[in-house]
Amino acid sequence: MSRTPFEVVAAVDIGATKTTVAVVPLPVVTWTARSPDGSVRVRTAPTDRDPDVALATVVSAVRAGLADLGPAGVVLRAVGCAAPGPLDPELGVVIHSPNLGWRDVPVGPSLGDALGVPWSLDDDANLGALGEAILGAGRGARTVAYLTVSSGIGGGIVRDGVRLVGDHALAGEIGHLDAGIGGTDVPRCSCGRRGHIEAYAGGVCLAARAARRWPRGRLSDGRAAPRDADAILRAARHESEVRPLARDAETALATAIGAFAAVLDPGVVVVGGAIALAHPALTRRAAAIAARRAIPETAASLRVVHAMLGAECVLAGSALMAAAVAADPSHHQRRSKVKGVRHA
Amino acid sequence: MSRTPFEVVAAVDIGATKTTVAVVPLPVVTWTARSPDGSVRVRTAPTDRDPDVALATVVSAVRAGLADLGPAGVVLRAVGCAAPGPLDPELGVVIHSPNLGWRDVPVGPSLGDALGVPWSLDDDANLGALGEAILGAGRGARTVAYLTVSSGIGGGIVRDGVRLVGDHALAGEIGHLDAGIGGTDVPRCSCGRRGHIEAYAGGVCLAARAARRWPRGRLSDGRAAPRDADAILRAARHESEVRPLARDAETALATAIGAFAAVLDPGVVVVGGAIALAHPALTRRAAAIAARRAIPETAASLRVVHAMLGAECVLAGSALMAAAVAADPSHHQRRSKVKGVRHA
Repeated sequence: MSRTPFEVVAAVDIGATKTTVAVVPLPVVTWTARSPDGSVRVRTAPTDRDPDVALATVVSAVRAGLADLGPAGVVLRAVGCAAPGPLDPELGVVIHSPNLGWRDVPVGPSLGDALGVPWSLDDDANLGALGEAILGAGRGARTVAYLTVSSGIGGGIVRDGVRLVGDHALAGEIGHLDAGIGGTDVPRCSCGRRGHIEAYAGGVCLAARAARRWPRGRLSDGRAAPRDADAILRAARHESEVRPLARDAETALATAIGAFAAVLDPGVVVVGGAIALAHPALTRRAAAIAARRAIPETAASLRVVHAMLGAECVLAGSALMAAAVAADPSHHQRRSKVKGVRHA
Repeated sequence: MSRTPFEVVAAVDIGATKTTVAVVPLPVVTWTARSPDGSVRVRTAPTDRDPDVALATVVSAVRAGLADLGPAGVVLRAVGCAAPGPLDPELGVVIHSPNLGWRDVPVGPSLGDALGVPWSLDDDANLGALGEAILGAGRGARTVAYLTVSSGIGGGIVRDGVRLVGDHALAGEIGHLDAGIGGTDVPRCSCGRRGHIEAYAGGVCLAARAARRWPRGRLSDGRAAPRDADAILRAARHESEVRPLARDAETALATAIGAFAAVLDPGVVVVGGAIALAHPALTRRAAAIAARRAIPETAASLRVVHAMLGAECVLAGSALMAAAVAADPSHHQRRSKVKGVRHA
């Protein structure tokens, strides 16, 4: 008896330090990568700073994933990829990634050409939002607002299963909203402005704040000052001198949650990202502040939960986007040609 | 030669003090009520505090509007109504209007039954948003955020021509977002919480702030203190003692604009409402503050404009909703029956 061919997509998450790849059967209706007997196997490799090498590694990993599924009968239908922004999802180009040192890299078209399938490219916050909304903690809600707290603060919105991108592809950029904290020590954000939510709650900015506050690396009693976001949030539990930094981070995240709630009235706010997932009290306190500030009706309906898929929500979102372009492959390619991108 | 019958909808705006009614030809593609030769004639009457009397007045005004259009051949297809919230748009019921003293008034079903047509009911901020988005200053933008500054602060969002209502019908309730101003004098909002945007920029709250600041009704030099929002904003132009109140209002509205911009990335933010339209500098300054605070990309794409249709944007929105239910009359009636509302 011959096996019926089955269809899969490739999901890729190119991060600043590591790249993960999975081959996912269609339709993408669940995300089981984290379960020991999951049908999705995730391959991880360091992200090479040379984009050609990095993309060749992705292609090899996809081919290895396909080979895993058996000698024949597997059809790859599309590849969906996440990368750090800013990027152009229509052209599939990473415009500039300071951490990787990449500039104008046509990630989408390159992967699509190498694998011979249609492609999709978007940034990690947006794809994390999609993954959590459809396959994770947002399941069942009509409007899902996603907030990611890691080295920076990102956000994304999914409504009726579709990403809300905004009129200039900037929707959900909640990290760069004013935190509303004020006072005299208004920290600078990674974008250059002061007082944004990311300036108080993003990992990189939080570490910079600590470095400015304790320039000799010592608390007033001589003990070592915390240097990164993780250490700051741990120390804040018992060090009154560190607590104000954590409190500002909570207040800033409450502003993000409050803005999502007031503008969108989502069914759920999903909070993910390495820092939030490692410090659940941060989200809990931020949600409590947001509820205290909101109008009672909004406070009563506000639901803030942690992401369920962990870091793999981005990969899940990539798989969902790949499934979408598999169903309508002309979409991205047509747009690329109109804008005249050179397919690498 | 017999005249071809033509189809119209009735648009109604029940305000706290006055009610306006118009009969509008289908399709609703423009709003010309304000032009001297406009095809839409608006009738205005005081809103009676007895809901039966108020609704009978509406029905008479609609019939008079139909009669104006000629002796025969006019077919009324639907009635769309705006009323002060909170209300239940599905049931067509004004739940509670403190200003009118109304409680559980089935405005939608009553008008629908009396006129023998399908009905629609929504609150004035939402319908103002729809009117401006489709027939006013938002025309051409994909996502329109609407902010109304009058006795209170309201908001509404329209995307691809459809109102974004949220998962609990609270989307766009931007007046009750924390203004992020802080300090020691944090004013109480109409909702009971403190520090909301409406607490600084809503007309009623602004007047209450002035009354608390100048309890004897005199500025420190003995001249009369301004008592209402209009007088406060006028006095703020030259009275340094009054200026801080206007500055807080500007800052609070900047927070509203900033939240809309960061979350939704709208094509345009339309600012309407009597206070904003009478004091254009308020919007101009708020927009400038919002742009200074935002990430450069968002600041560059942020467009803040005044409403074009004035107070009639609400009536225009009612006409559009009436046109929508005329096209799909089963929608509201079916829902009403499911929930078992008593059609008055």
